[in-house]
Amino acid sequence: MIVEIVAVGTELLLGQITNRNASYIGEKLADSGFDAHFQVVVGDNLDRIVEAIETAMGRADAVILTGGIGPTQDDVTREAIAAATGRPLRFNEEFADRLKTYWESRGREMPESNLRQAEYPDGAQQIDNPKGTAPGLALEHEGCWLFALPGVPAEMQYLLQHEILPRLRDLAGVDHVVLSRLIRSWGRSESQVAELLDDLYNRSTNPSVAFLASAGEIKVRITAKAPSEADAVQLIAPYEQTVREKLGASVFGADEETIEQVLFDLLTQRGWTLATAESATAGMIAARITSVPGSSSVYRGGAVVYATDLKASLLNVPQEVLDAGVVSEATALFMAEGAAERFQADVAVAVTGSAGPDPQERAIGTMVIGVHTPEGSGVRVLRLPGDRERIRTYAATAALHLVRLAVVGEWWER
Amino acid sequence: MIVEIVAVGTELLLGQITNRNASYIGEKLADSGFDAHFQVVVGDNLDRIVEAIETAMGRADAVILTGGIGPTQDDVTREAIAAATGRPLRFNEEFADRLKTYWESRGREMPESNLRQAEYPDGAQQIDNPKGTAPGLALEHEGCWLFALPGVPAEMQYLLQHEILPRLRDLAGVDHVVLSRLIRSWGRSESQVAELLDDLYNRSTNPSVAFLASAGEIKVRITAKAPSEADAVQLIAPYEQTVREKLGASVFGADEETIEQVLFDLLTQRGWTLATAESATAGMIAARITSVPGSSSVYRGGAVVYATDLKASLLNVPQEVLDAGVVSEATALFMAEGAAERFQADVAVAVTGSAGPDPQERAIGTMVIGVHTPEGSGVRVLRLPGDRERIRTYAATAALHLVRLAVVGEWWER
Repeated sequence: MIVEIVAVGTELLLGQITNRNASYIGEKLADSGFDAHFQVVVGDNLDRIVEAIETAMGRADAVILTGGIGPTQDDVTREAIAAATGRPLRFNEEFADRLKTYWESRGREMPESNLRQAEYPDGAQQIDNPKGTAPGLALEHEGCWLFALPGVPAEMQYLLQHEILPRLRDLAGVDHVVLSRLIRSWGRSESQVAELLDDLYNRSTNPSVAFLASAGEIKVRITAKAPSEADAVQLIAPYEQTVREKLGASVFGADEETIEQVLFDLLTQRGWTLATAESATAGMIAARITSVPGSSSVYRGGAVVYATDLKASLLNVPQEVLDAGVVSEATALFMAEGAAERFQADVAVAVTGSAGPDPQERAIGTMVIGVHTPEGSGVRVLRLPGDRERIRTYAATAALHLVRLAVVGEWWER
Repeated sequence: MIVEIVAVGTELLLGQITNRNASYIGEKLADSGFDAHFQVVVGDNLDRIVEAIETAMGRADAVILTGGIGPTQDDVTREAIAAATGRPLRFNEEFADRLKTYWESRGREMPESNLRQAEYPDGAQQIDNPKGTAPGLALEHEGCWLFALPGVPAEMQYLLQHEILPRLRDLAGVDHVVLSRLIRSWGRSESQVAELLDDLYNRSTNPSVAFLASAGEIKVRITAKAPSEADAVQLIAPYEQTVREKLGASVFGADEETIEQVLFDLLTQRGWTLATAESATAGMIAARITSVPGSSSVYRGGAVVYATDLKASLLNVPQEVLDAGVVSEATALFMAEGAAERFQADVAVAVTGSAGPDPQERAIGTMVIGVHTPEGSGVRVLRLPGDRERIRTYAATAALHLVRLAVVGEWWER
């Protein structure tokens, strides 16, 4: 089944917003096994939306329109569908009443233009939009299905997931579900992961196994086709187990789990608190661990010791250690231990490094990360590529992962 | 002149990347006064790229293609242009030689497929690409201009700016330049800014004045049309002066200047150093000020005092002050003064607040920012909307701006 996406909105043409809706829908369509040949963006112009719809209907089995179904005068997607299919617009009295009640219940008067949202091309079905007021539309015309969704991402995503994709699967006679599970790892290279999972990768078509690398993370995606979701889950389970066994401690989570949340959970389980001591990353690790709601139960605080003398005065790094090298294994270890003590935390992580643009002692990209736990200490030197911000961001990510490994007792080679 | 953008790449259809190139080009076209009616995305498929080119040529005066001109087998934009215009592909020997020399100079053997980049449709001009190896293409066919650019954003942007836009302006007989200047302000609402600049806004069509609000910043955009860049600069200058006078100290910079860089420059000028004391923002301010290369000459360091007891032990906030309210004006002021002393800095900024999801003492979104300078201290209470991350990010932005105002002696009402 071929599906075409038509995004409506002059602000897209002017570059005021980027067409993320199209990439979101494109990904979901691909996940479900549908083909996409074209995506089109068109402004808030009736004739040109009609042209885009007619062209899309001529080459696709289904067309998903986003945007232009709100209450204002420039929202003309409803009219365009009517014109492209030669159907008159009808008025949904019941929906109009609900709309009026909604506004009244908030004690506000409804602008008359909102009633436009009660209009629909003859034969179309209005689809309730629990995330907003503008209803979606579904219409079959001469063997092609047209769907109109709001442009607001949260509303569009909800309706796509709960209304459009299930309908498309029905229409395509898809009698199976496609389910993916993402296993997230850190600390091995993509080629190491691929080598460890070589058998799995070559052996299997269902589930299929794919590798994705991004921001230092290697993700293993296991995708299964099965008659039901329960069957797909069962197909995936042994693969997930194999992946976790082969990759060992480098696996930190699955699907939407973040390293921040995973680390927070692990520290909570062990009853350990955390402190940070940051030079090159200057607060980035602290900001990330505290992005987890409720992190105050685990995170005590930290020092940003940008100036070298503060590493001594605040964290008790011995002067002779600093003299021997600020960007050094010894400095990182003393910083971590000093932070644990100063902030009365069980675990502490420290970063000192050379982020550029000018090198500090060691080559740009050299980042030294020290970790202290009640069970011991460890340090690791990373050489990171990229510019200043990328080096700092990667180092903060690496620091969170190294803390996780230390907390689960999987110390790296020290 | 109507310009259509055709982006080539299966990864765009699959949603693996978002079509930021289109929004970038769309914005630049709008800036130059060109009309855009459609944007199209098509996969790496010869027939369908041909279809997209033919359709675009039928309704636009110029077509800008991005992507598909690299060296690999799935890069077929060159072939598609040749097919759509019925022209044979030619081979540029001289370019092929340069390509070989380039590879040899790096001591590597060139894969044969790279020679594909020396091909061009008959009559097309190859445009040198100083940011990469794949050259762009320009071809006039039956009154329509076709331009092919690389998909790599940095290469595309360079060629658009330096080659395509000047050609389009020539073709359109544009005998003027359009120049914009963005005046950036913080601390006034959009409606206040609009009211202060009401005269300017209503009076003027050239330069025109527009307001943009984003992330708490209000930007005033002054756009002039003139026969030359020098004339446009001259048209803009008195408007910029008026805007700066009317908005006063809330103007912090222009165009690409960031608050981080501006603050760094101001502190450098005054010879003052900076420290941070963060609770709710937990390192975000530190991370942002240190995003400026060379910030170690100004920024000393900071404390992330997430746990309440650390505010006392590390920054000497009196226990009775904390008992009376951790999220309070007094706590923020003591934190700032404590940080200035502890980190031996001239200036210090402190944030304490309630970021949610559960309220801490005061309503979620309450953020108290204290600033200490050698000339005095000040505190401000903000009530910020949004979720936890948005509140924290806005508070960090506000803190940087309040430090700037304090450093230039423009204390807010205290």
